[in-house]
Amino acid sequence: MSSDVQTFEITFLPDNIKVQAEPGESILDIANRGQIHINASCGGEGVCGRCQVELRDGEVEASPGLYLSEKDFAEGLRLACRAKAKGPATLYVPIESRADASSFKKAAKAEENLEVKEHDPMARQYLLELSPPDPADNLADLDRTLGALANLGLTDLDVELAAMKKMPQVLRDENFKVRASVFFEPAIADPERPPYGRLLSLSKATLDETYYGLSVDVGTTSVWVRLVNLATNEALPPIGDLNGQISFGEDVISRIVYAGKGNGLHKLQSQVIGTINGLLARLDEVYPNFRDNLYLVVVAGNTTMSHLLVGVEPRHIRLAPYVPPVASWPAIRPSFLGLDVPSHAVMKIFPSVSSYVGGDIVAGVLASGMYKSPELTLFIDVGTNGEIVIGTEDWMTCAACSAGPAFEGGGVKRGMRAAPGAIEIFNYEPLAKKHHLGVIGRGRPIGICGSGLINIVAELYRHGVINKQGKFVENVCPYVREGEDGLEYVLAAASESGGEGRDVVLTEIDVENLIRAKGAMFSGYQTLVEGVGLTLGDLERVIIAGGFGSSLNLENAIEIGLLPCLPLEKFFYIGNSSLTGATLALMSSSMWRLAQDVRGRMTNFELSETPGYMDKYMASQFIPHTDASLFAR
Amino acid sequence: MSSDVQTFEITFLPDNIKVQAEPGESILDIANRGQIHINASCGGEGVCGRCQVELRDGEVEASPGLYLSEKDFAEGLRLACRAKAKGPATLYVPIESRADASSFKKAAKAEENLEVKEHDPMARQYLLELSPPDPADNLADLDRTLGALANLGLTDLDVELAAMKKMPQVLRDENFKVRASVFFEPAIADPERPPYGRLLSLSKATLDETYYGLSVDVGTTSVWVRLVNLATNEALPPIGDLNGQISFGEDVISRIVYAGKGNGLHKLQSQVIGTINGLLARLDEVYPNFRDNLYLVVVAGNTTMSHLLVGVEPRHIRLAPYVPPVASWPAIRPSFLGLDVPSHAVMKIFPSVSSYVGGDIVAGVLASGMYKSPELTLFIDVGTNGEIVIGTEDWMTCAACSAGPAFEGGGVKRGMRAAPGAIEIFNYEPLAKKHHLGVIGRGRPIGICGSGLINIVAELYRHGVINKQGKFVENVCPYVREGEDGLEYVLAAASESGGEGRDVVLTEIDVENLIRAKGAMFSGYQTLVEGVGLTLGDLERVIIAGGFGSSLNLENAIEIGLLPCLPLEKFFYIGNSSLTGATLALMSSSMWRLAQDVRGRMTNFELSETPGYMDKYMASQFIPHTDASLFAR
Repeated sequence: MSSDVQTFEITFLPDNIKVQAEPGESILDIANRGQIHINASCGGEGVCGRCQVELRDGEVEASPGLYLSEKDFAEGLRLACRAKAKGPATLYVPIESRADASSFKKAAKAEENLEVKEHDPMARQYLLELSPPDPADNLADLDRTLGALANLGLTDLDVELAAMKKMPQVLRDENFKVRASVFFEPAIADPERPPYGRLLSLSKATLDETYYGLSVDVGTTSVWVRLVNLATNEALPPIGDLNGQISFGEDVISRIVYAGKGNGLHKLQSQVIGTINGLLARLDEVYPNFRDNLYLVVVAGNTTMSHLLVGVEPRHIRLAPYVPPVASWPAIRPSFLGLDVPSHAVMKIFPSVSSYVGGDIVAGVLASGMYKSPELTLFIDVGTNGEIVIGTEDWMTCAACSAGPAFEGGGVKRGMRAAPGAIEIFNYEPLAKKHHLGVIGRGRPIGICGSGLINIVAELYRHGVINKQGKFVENVCPYVREGEDGLEYVLAAASESGGEGRDVVLTEIDVENLIRAKGAMFSGYQTLVEGVGLTLGDLERVIIAGGFGSSLNLENAIEIGLLPCLPLEKFFYIGNSSLTGATLALMSSSMWRLAQDVRGRMTNFELSETPGYMDKYMASQFIPHTDASLFAR
Repeated sequence: MSSDVQTFEITFLPDNIKVQAEPGESILDIANRGQIHINASCGGEGVCGRCQVELRDGEVEASPGLYLSEKDFAEGLRLACRAKAKGPATLYVPIESRADASSFKKAAKAEENLEVKEHDPMARQYLLELSPPDPADNLADLDRTLGALANLGLTDLDVELAAMKKMPQVLRDENFKVRASVFFEPAIADPERPPYGRLLSLSKATLDETYYGLSVDVGTTSVWVRLVNLATNEALPPIGDLNGQISFGEDVISRIVYAGKGNGLHKLQSQVIGTINGLLARLDEVYPNFRDNLYLVVVAGNTTMSHLLVGVEPRHIRLAPYVPPVASWPAIRPSFLGLDVPSHAVMKIFPSVSSYVGGDIVAGVLASGMYKSPELTLFIDVGTNGEIVIGTEDWMTCAACSAGPAFEGGGVKRGMRAAPGAIEIFNYEPLAKKHHLGVIGRGRPIGICGSGLINIVAELYRHGVINKQGKFVENVCPYVREGEDGLEYVLAAASESGGEGRDVVLTEIDVENLIRAKGAMFSGYQTLVEGVGLTLGDLERVIIAGGFGSSLNLENAIEIGLLPCLPLEKFFYIGNSSLTGATLALMSSSMWRLAQDVRGRMTNFELSETPGYMDKYMASQFIPHTDASLFAR
């Protein structure tokens, strides 16, 4: 916003979030700036009608149209992407218009879980009022301090070297009234064993109670962190960035390969450490000096990302029999890894189940609460490496599906990541034989991202342009033509595209790849469900996790046979459940212990070695499936 | 020895040590080379007669003389310093001729203690035969390894980062048969608590069982180390060197002062680390590659030396109320301190009792066994900072005496350390009014070392040249003259001395300083003994520890009132008991725990604040004491 323009406040209900706005800005843009996620499947083109909001007070510049009748308009409904601010206004965002409303109904659930019952983080602070030494009481400083902690029941603490060195000065500067920060690591194998404890630091007994922990989700594509005040269990908003490793390969396999070459492991480690350090620097701007008060870091990541973070060579993850070097991680000093945090800080990393079902999934299951629910739940993280967990409070099985890169735009002729220029939304009007494109960033189309691919194939299948086998039906629509690789659908001619003079097309090979990918996921969870004598129809909940899930259109994902054909109200989008799970364990050592327990209860299946999987996979290579009864509504 | 000379073997009994020798070498030199310590108070001048050995086989070049009658000679007695090798021979070293025979009788006792009953070092090795992973058993490497250790009862181990990084390669190189090295730290405060354990490394399951620990005695003056094969409890011979800190001050106070200036602490730490690294380099020559197999370091040192080693600012040790920063040390990574040892190695440091009764004394008491004896024992370490422990198996009290530097040659006009040129032995012939000097290194006299000072003053007092008040008696002997500082005794005129044209003299001020020092020690242990309602006559054993003790002549030390007047058979010289105690704790975690227990049982007295001490000190300022009955034989 330029400073010479009069600004005013737009208020969004029900969250009562106020955002400064300028005249002429779209309500969608203003909402985005306020981090209010409004569904805009078409990317703000006014073609999907899913961004309806309700004007409660004030005025906006708007008019009825294709998606809003006169009656709707009279009742106050507006399209957020088309309505423009003209003065102060209050708008209500109905649940249907929130991002991915169909799966979002219980999205807040994981957040609610952040209200952990016990205030028992692995790093805790104790205010100590020591009696100053005198000739009759000349205990050594450290022995005096540890004695006071022993009186609180904390015996036999290990002591951080740096803390010990600073101790004489701190004690005297603070007149022997100090805050002791202690790390407790609960014993896992032998629950009777008292936790291992380490005195991390002595510091000024501050009144403002800043006492921080950091949860980190290390994803293959992006890294998210969340600062938590462990004194109050207040979790600050997450911030994220692309994982710096992305320039060394898009998926875990290419990272593992790179790590095995020369100095590759070190380079990859430096990249991800650099990414996290960058996020810490951003936190610095908001919470100056939080670092000195940072004691605990809890990380969740997939198996490969965890190894690369710590600097453990991951090659055996991808070599049979797929044994990762480490599944359960010991406590690590993040400063040793190069993180810009004090030497006293301790890092715990979520345990993984197997080479391809990692700590991110364990954290996700923890965040989802499925481990404590009687409902038969499918937890699914769609991606190149797709992870699936099914089960209830009594049992859980899990598996990884090697879906291939189609969901991330790989192996697709004009595939790309979900970045500006990617076609994400696609509507086809069968009577007019016209399509509408929703492009991320609203510029010219350059390519197709994963969720766009699903939406396009679903819509074309729905309208008979693509058949059950994934082949284009000739002479149905004018966009299908013979291309270099057989029939293809022209999404945008070179003249309309942002793709440097290239047509943006969808080929039959692209569709084949998508079918292969969705089939791998489908047959994966089908194998797990049927392996325990149940059917997909028995599923009571489907929890969709991960970054890709957030842009997934449920109806379309079901249409192509990626997700099971169940009533939409059974689907829940859980957001970054890896980060949420890490945050829970950061806040509470009980949750950390629970995570180990949850992980122990997740029985891993290697699908490629599970009888029946290959047959199910073959049967899934249709749209939506060979067995149409699986998708009969 | 030059290579073109025919060498032969000299065998020393009773230890049956064989040493290669050349014709013409003195038996004393040969014995020294074989580390057989033969008493040679005169420094090999043939004037003390205390180095008698018995020829059992073969021949040596020798003749009777002042100290050997024809009869003695016929019976095979020889003076080791005068007898020269001429061919293979076997010699018996009688107990009287062993170094400091009068106090040496049970010197081997501490060594015997090295036969620890339990083989339970804090670092232990386990041979693991893991089943290699296969598709049906795809546990992660670390989880597989920890699982095998858990099957041995070792649950919830922490894991060394470096070990984890190397693990995948080591396991596969060794076909999953490896040696796991594990550190166990026994809980002290809560003995019910299982020990803290850390997996230090995985390595080749070697057959030669090299598995090393290092004990270290960090003295203010010198540093000694001893390599121990923890697999066999074999302790290799100790090696030592001057503490590199010596150029920054001779005593702990000057070191503390230096540490407080600018970068002083870091410099002092670097010096002592450098000294130990130098000793490690010497061990390298004998035991190549021992470092990779070094897992545990146990250190004993006085309170100040321990702080300087770790790099903790020690200033409060010398400021009232004399509170050291640390008494009980946590486990420390010696590699963090700059020691040239692998990152997996762990260091434990003996706890101290107080600012001036340090871990070296705790280790000494451990080595002495006094804590488990019903006999009332005085343990005494004579030095600038003299330490005293008295007690039995039921109780122990201890104190430090600030004796001043006289015992180490300080505050004495021609004082020097016990180095070549120092007069150590002094015999006075009252009839001939002549003296004989024994000089360390047998060169010209340069000055007087601490033990020499005691010997000279005792001998002169014995023969009436010095009186009870420590003053020279005039006209008794020709060596007494009026000097710059009053009367003085000329030990060597400038023309005979090696002291750059200076006379080597003993002044009345020197004698005063010695009286002050010996009085501080005497009144210290007298205060402790009488404080529990006993008298010095009740003492059943006196154990003399420390480097200075080894050169102490017992009769002379009693003569001047430094040691209590008790039958000589009650005195025992225990050698470097600090190193021995550290070695015991290195070999056995039970001994380590016992050391904590022993330390807890040592009740510290601050003499300066103990009623009666000053009176006793004043009364001790005579030779041997104001109360002659204390020294009546």
